[in-house]
Amino acid sequence: MRKMKAILLREFGGPENLFYGETDKPVPKANQILIRTVAAAVNKPDVMQRMGQYPPPMGESEILGLEVAGEVEQIGDAVSKFKPGDKVMALVAGGAYAAYTTAYEGHVMHKPASMDFNQAACVCEAYITAYLNLFMLGALKHDQSVLLHGGGGGVNTAAIQLCRNLLSNCKIFVTASPGKVDRVKELGADHVIDYQNQSFADEIKSLTENRGVDVVLDHIGGPYLESNMKSLAVGGTLMQIGVSEGVKAELNLALMMVKRQRIIGSVLRSRSIDEKARIIEKFTEVVLPKFADSSIVPLISDVFPLEQAAQAHKKMESSQHFGKIVLEV
Amino acid sequence: MRKMKAILLREFGGPENLFYGETDKPVPKANQILIRTVAAAVNKPDVMQRMGQYPPPMGESEILGLEVAGEVEQIGDAVSKFKPGDKVMALVAGGAYAAYTTAYEGHVMHKPASMDFNQAACVCEAYITAYLNLFMLGALKHDQSVLLHGGGGGVNTAAIQLCRNLLSNCKIFVTASPGKVDRVKELGADHVIDYQNQSFADEIKSLTENRGVDVVLDHIGGPYLESNMKSLAVGGTLMQIGVSEGVKAELNLALMMVKRQRIIGSVLRSRSIDEKARIIEKFTEVVLPKFADSSIVPLISDVFPLEQAAQAHKKMESSQHFGKIVLEV
Repeated sequence: MRKMKAILLREFGGPENLFYGETDKPVPKANQILIRTVAAAVNKPDVMQRMGQYPPPMGESEILGLEVAGEVEQIGDAVSKFKPGDKVMALVAGGAYAAYTTAYEGHVMHKPASMDFNQAACVCEAYITAYLNLFMLGALKHDQSVLLHGGGGGVNTAAIQLCRNLLSNCKIFVTASPGKVDRVKELGADHVIDYQNQSFADEIKSLTENRGVDVVLDHIGGPYLESNMKSLAVGGTLMQIGVSEGVKAELNLALMMVKRQRIIGSVLRSRSIDEKARIIEKFTEVVLPKFADSSIVPLISDVFPLEQAAQAHKKMESSQHFGKIVLEV
Repeated sequence: MRKMKAILLREFGGPENLFYGETDKPVPKANQILIRTVAAAVNKPDVMQRMGQYPPPMGESEILGLEVAGEVEQIGDAVSKFKPGDKVMALVAGGAYAAYTTAYEGHVMHKPASMDFNQAACVCEAYITAYLNLFMLGALKHDQSVLLHGGGGGVNTAAIQLCRNLLSNCKIFVTASPGKVDRVKELGADHVIDYQNQSFADEIKSLTENRGVDVVLDHIGGPYLESNMKSLAVGGTLMQIGVSEGVKAELNLALMMVKRQRIIGSVLRSRSIDEKARIIEKFTEVVLPKFADSSIVPLISDVFPLEQAAQAHKKMESSQHFGKIVLEV
C-alpha cells in the first residue's frame, strides 16, 4: 500500500497529541473519488474528536477533518460526474487532514472558478450544516426572523451569510462576545446581543415586541434550552445542532404545546450516504450559485500549513478566531 | 336577545357545578353558521375547562363543548357553502353543550348520510386532532410504526382507526390499562402494552428489535418524556398534544441530536380561524370519504341527554368509557 503524509493522533487529548506523520494512502471504492488535498478546514467537531468525544462513524477514516478542497486524483469505477484533474470540494465523514482524501461522488461539488482552494475548503461542513438546519429542516422563510448563537464561529458566520443572501427581509439576531459584536454586525446581523452582559431571552423579547423569533439555531445545549424556548415565537422551531455546554435540561412541555413549538435534533456526520447526497444536491442547486457569483465569500480567519494542525486547534480553542481556520497542504 | 337551553357552570370545580339552564342564543357573524344542536361530544379538555384549567380562546363562547352535529338554522351574510336545513358537523372553540352553536363556515362539514348525528358529533375534535398530529405534523407514512397512549380515549381510538384505514402496513403499538387490552386489539392495534404492569419503552424496544417507532402521540407529558424519547427510532417524532400527568421533565438533548429526533408541541383549539379551516379542508378531502363509505365508524361508549352533562363528565373522569361519550339534545 502506498503511503501519504497526514496529521495523526498520538492519543486522545490536547492539541499536542497531533503530529505530522505518514500513513496509508486511501483507495477509493467504486462510488468514491480520491482527492489530492490542497486545503482542509478545521471545525469544532475535529477538536471534540481529538479529545475522544466524537468518534467517526463506523468504517470511516480515523483521521480528523470533515471538509476538503483539491484536485481529483483518481475515480472509482462507478463514478461518472468527475474526472481526474477536476477541481473540487467535498464533505467527508473524516480524513481531510491528509495529503489525499476519499469522498463519495454524491458528496463532491465542482469548485467554482471564482473561489480559491482555501475558500472552497470552507464550504462543505459549515455552510451545508447551516443550510440543512435553517432552511431544509428549520424551514426558515422570507420575512421571518432567526436567532443564531456563536458570534464568529464557522457555522454561525455561514448562517448569517445564507440568511442575508437566500431570504428577503430576514431579521437576523446573533449572540456574540463583546469583542465580536461589531464584526458580526458588519457581516449582516440586524442585532447583536452581547451574551456576557445581557440576557438574550430578554433582549429577543424586547427586540421582537414579545413575538419571539421563528427559528433558533443552537449548539450550546442544556444551559440555553429554557432561554431558547422563551425566545421562540408561536410555531417556532429550535434546531439543536450541538450540546457543547451541557447535555440535559428541563423542558416545559405545556408551554411548548400551547405555543406549538418544535425542537429538532440534528447532526450531519452520521446521516446515511444517500441522505447526505440528497442534501448536497439541493445545496448545489440553491446555494452554490451564490458562491459562483461571489455573493457569498467564505470568511477566513487564519491559514496554517497542514503540519501546524496543532496550532490551528489551539487557535480554535482560544475562540479568538472570526470565520474559518484553514489548513494548507 | 333570544334565549336557549344550555349546560352552564356555577363555578370551576367538580361535575356537580354543571347545570342545565338558560342563556343567550348566539348570533352568527357574517362568516358563521348557527347550528341547531342535535348531538355534542364530550372531550377531556371540557373536563379541564370545567375545573378552570383550560379557558376558551379570547372571544369564544364560555360554554363547554368542542364538537357538534346538527342542522343549519341560519347562515351569516358571507356564507356560501351551506344553507338552512343542511345536516352538518362542526369544530368549535367552545359552545357545543347548548341547543344552538355558532361555527365558522370553514370549520363545518356536511354530515355523510351514512352517519347518524351522534356519530357525526364525534368526528371533529378527536379525529381531526389525531389526523392533524399523526399525518399533517407527524408525517406518519405507509410502512411506518406508531406508539399511541391512552387505551380507549377518543383521540386514541380515532388514531387507531385512521392509521388502519389511511396507511398500508402501519405497525400500531398502543398502551392501555389491563381491562382494555382486548378491545384495543379488536380495534386494530398490532400490539397492546399493559402500561400498569410493563415498561412501554422496554416493550417497544423488544417489539421493534431496538429500532423504535417513527411517531409517538402523547398526551401524558412529563412522566412519559424520557420513555417516549427512548421509544422513538432515529429520525422519529414525538407529538406532544397534552400534559395531563405533568408539565415538565428533563430532556437529553445530546441523544435527541444524535438520533435526529423531533418533539412537536401541538394544540388544535388555539390555532387561528384560517389555520383550522385549512386543516379541515384537508381532512374533508382525505378522511371524510372513509366516514362516508363506513370504513371508519366512530366508536360510541355512552349517550346521555344534554341535561345529564354532569353524569357524562363523571363517566369520563372514571376512565371506564371506551370510545366517545355523546350528549343528545
